[in-house]
Amino acid sequence: MAVYTDVSADDLAEFLRRYDVGELLSYKGIAEGVENTNFLVHTTAAKFILTLYEKRTAESDLPFFLGLMEHLAARGITCPQPVKDRTGGMLGRIAGRPAAMVTFLDGMWIRKPDAGHCAAVGEALARLHLAARDFPIARPNALSVDSWRPLYEHAGPRGDDVQPGLCNEIVKELDVLEKNWPRNLPAGVIHADLFPDNVFFLGDGLSGLIDFYFACTDTLAYDVAICLNCWCFEPDHSYNVTKGRALLSAYTKVRALSDQERQALPMLARGAAMRFLLTRLVDWLAVPEGALVKPKNPLEYFRKLRFHQSVTSVSDYGIAS
Amino acid sequence: MAVYTDVSADDLAEFLRRYDVGELLSYKGIAEGVENTNFLVHTTAAKFILTLYEKRTAESDLPFFLGLMEHLAARGITCPQPVKDRTGGMLGRIAGRPAAMVTFLDGMWIRKPDAGHCAAVGEALARLHLAARDFPIARPNALSVDSWRPLYEHAGPRGDDVQPGLCNEIVKELDVLEKNWPRNLPAGVIHADLFPDNVFFLGDGLSGLIDFYFACTDTLAYDVAICLNCWCFEPDHSYNVTKGRALLSAYTKVRALSDQERQALPMLARGAAMRFLLTRLVDWLAVPEGALVKPKNPLEYFRKLRFHQSVTSVSDYGIAS
Repeated sequence: MAVYTDVSADDLAEFLRRYDVGELLSYKGIAEGVENTNFLVHTTAAKFILTLYEKRTAESDLPFFLGLMEHLAARGITCPQPVKDRTGGMLGRIAGRPAAMVTFLDGMWIRKPDAGHCAAVGEALARLHLAARDFPIARPNALSVDSWRPLYEHAGPRGDDVQPGLCNEIVKELDVLEKNWPRNLPAGVIHADLFPDNVFFLGDGLSGLIDFYFACTDTLAYDVAICLNCWCFEPDHSYNVTKGRALLSAYTKVRALSDQERQALPMLARGAAMRFLLTRLVDWLAVPEGALVKPKNPLEYFRKLRFHQSVTSVSDYGIAS
Repeated sequence: MAVYTDVSADDLAEFLRRYDVGELLSYKGIAEGVENTNFLVHTTAAKFILTLYEKRTAESDLPFFLGLMEHLAARGITCPQPVKDRTGGMLGRIAGRPAAMVTFLDGMWIRKPDAGHCAAVGEALARLHLAARDFPIARPNALSVDSWRPLYEHAGPRGDDVQPGLCNEIVKELDVLEKNWPRNLPAGVIHADLFPDNVFFLGDGLSGLIDFYFACTDTLAYDVAICLNCWCFEPDHSYNVTKGRALLSAYTKVRALSDQERQALPMLARGAAMRFLLTRLVDWLAVPEGALVKPKNPLEYFRKLRFHQSVTSVSDYGIAS
C-alpha cells in the first residue's frame, strides 16, 4: 500500500516515448500491491498500470511474470497484458528500477465474496491452470514447504509475542507438513496468491485476474487450497462449506481433480494456511510498534490452520471424497 | 499518502446511484493527500476523484471547500468541480465518512519546477485571488500567526532532538513574527497550500489547481509568500531569484501588489516558513522511529526561514521595492 519510488513527469514521458501509447495525460500512485510501486497512467490512447519493481521482486523473474501474463491473455484469460515497446520488449527502466506497463482492467474486487463469487474464481483458476499448460518457462515456488522452516526461524521465538504458544504450534505443524507434504501431484503454473483483491468483478461477472508476481511452478491443487483459504472463510474464521462447494465444483467442471488430488486437499490447505501465517508473521514482526501501516494479522491464518487440522475428510470442504 | 478508509464496491455503487455519472467500472485508492482518503473512480461516463474526509478535516468546513471549488470553476479557474447529486447536493456519506466526488483533472505535477512553471503558478494564484473576491463564505485561517506558538508548544522542547538549538531559534522568531505580523493588508480567499504537487501541468501549460482543503480567508500577499517558499528555492535551499522574479512578475500582471504588500513580503515569507516548519515538526515528532512512512523534514523550512531573516529589501525576492 505504498509508492516506494516517485517518478517525475519528465522521466515518465521519456519512458512512454518508447511505446506507441499516445501522450501522457496524468498518472497517480495507487495504493495497491505491497511489494512494488504502481501508477495508474492515463494517456490519450488508453489507461495503463505502470509497475516499478522494487527489491523484493527479483529482476531475473520478470520474464516469467510478464511472459506468463502475455501467454494467458493470448489464450483468453482476462489478465493485464504487458504492453510492448516499439522494439517488442516488455521490460524497461525508470527511476533506476526495472519497470513494465500493462493494460488496465476494469472491475472491482469484492470485499465480501458470496458463493457466486467463489464459483467464478474456481472456474477462472481452472481455466488459468489449463491455459498455462504450455507456458515454456518454469519458476520454482520460493514459498513452498521447504521454505517454511527457514521462514519460521527468521521470525524466531518472537512468534510467542503475537500469541503465547504460537511457536510450539508452528513447529509441531511444520513437522507434520514436511513429513506428509504431497509431492507427486499434477504440477504446472499456479497463481499462488489469488486473494479476493486480485480478482476483479463487473456486476456479477468475473472481469479479470491480476498480480501474477507470486506465480510459479507448483502443485495445481495447492493453488486450489490457497483459494479455499482466502475465499471460503467467514470473518469469524469459520469455514463456509457452501462457498467451498461452489469453488470446488466450478473448478472441477473445467479441470477434474484426481482422487489423489482430492485426498491431498486437507494437507495442501494446511500448508497454504502455514505459508500465509508465516509470511504475515515475518511482516508483522518487522514493523515497529505505532507505525502508520499495519500489516495483516497473522493469527487469521493460524485460526484457518486450526480448521484444516480438524478436518477428517475432504468432504468437509464440500467435495466428494 | 494513504488510504485510511476502505470502501466496498457495493457501498460505492450505492453511493454513485445518487449521481448521474453512469455505471462504476473501477476505483483505486490513490497515494495522494495526507489528510483524507482519495479514490480515482472510473465510470462509463467519466473519471472522478472521490474523497472521504477523515477526522483532520472538519465537516463544518466542507461547504466552504466544496463551494469554493464550484465558485472558482464557474469563473474559469481549472480546479476540481464538485459533482452534484440528483438533489443538487455536493456532500454525501460513505463508509461512515463525509464524502464528495469531484471531476478528475488531467495533468502532472512538476518535481523540478523551472522559472516558466513559477510564472504560470504566479499568474494562476492571482487569477484565483480575483475569482474568489465575491465568494460569500469566510473561513478564518486556523494556521496563521496566532496558532504558531500553541503549535510550537505542542511539539515542545523535543524540537531540539531534530536539531540542537532549534527551539530557541523558533521562540525568538515567534517573538518577532507576533510583534511585526502585517495585519491590515488586502484579504480574501487564499489557497494557503499551493505546493508544486497541487499544481498540474500538461506540456508547458498549467492545467489545474487542486487540494483546496487548507483554503481560508487571509492576507492575499501571504499566499504569494507561501508560493515563494515552495516554488522558488533550490534543492540546496538557496533562493532562486530568477524563479522569484518570474512568479512575482506574473502575479502582479494580473493583480497588482500595493507598496504595503511589497514591503510586507519578507515578514510574510518568514511567517510562511514558520508555518510549514512547525506543522512538519509536529508531524515529524509524531511518527515513531522506523515507521514506513517518513514525514517531510522540517529543517527544510528552517533553512528557508534563515534566508528570509537575511533579506534586507523586498528586491532580494526579485520585485521592485
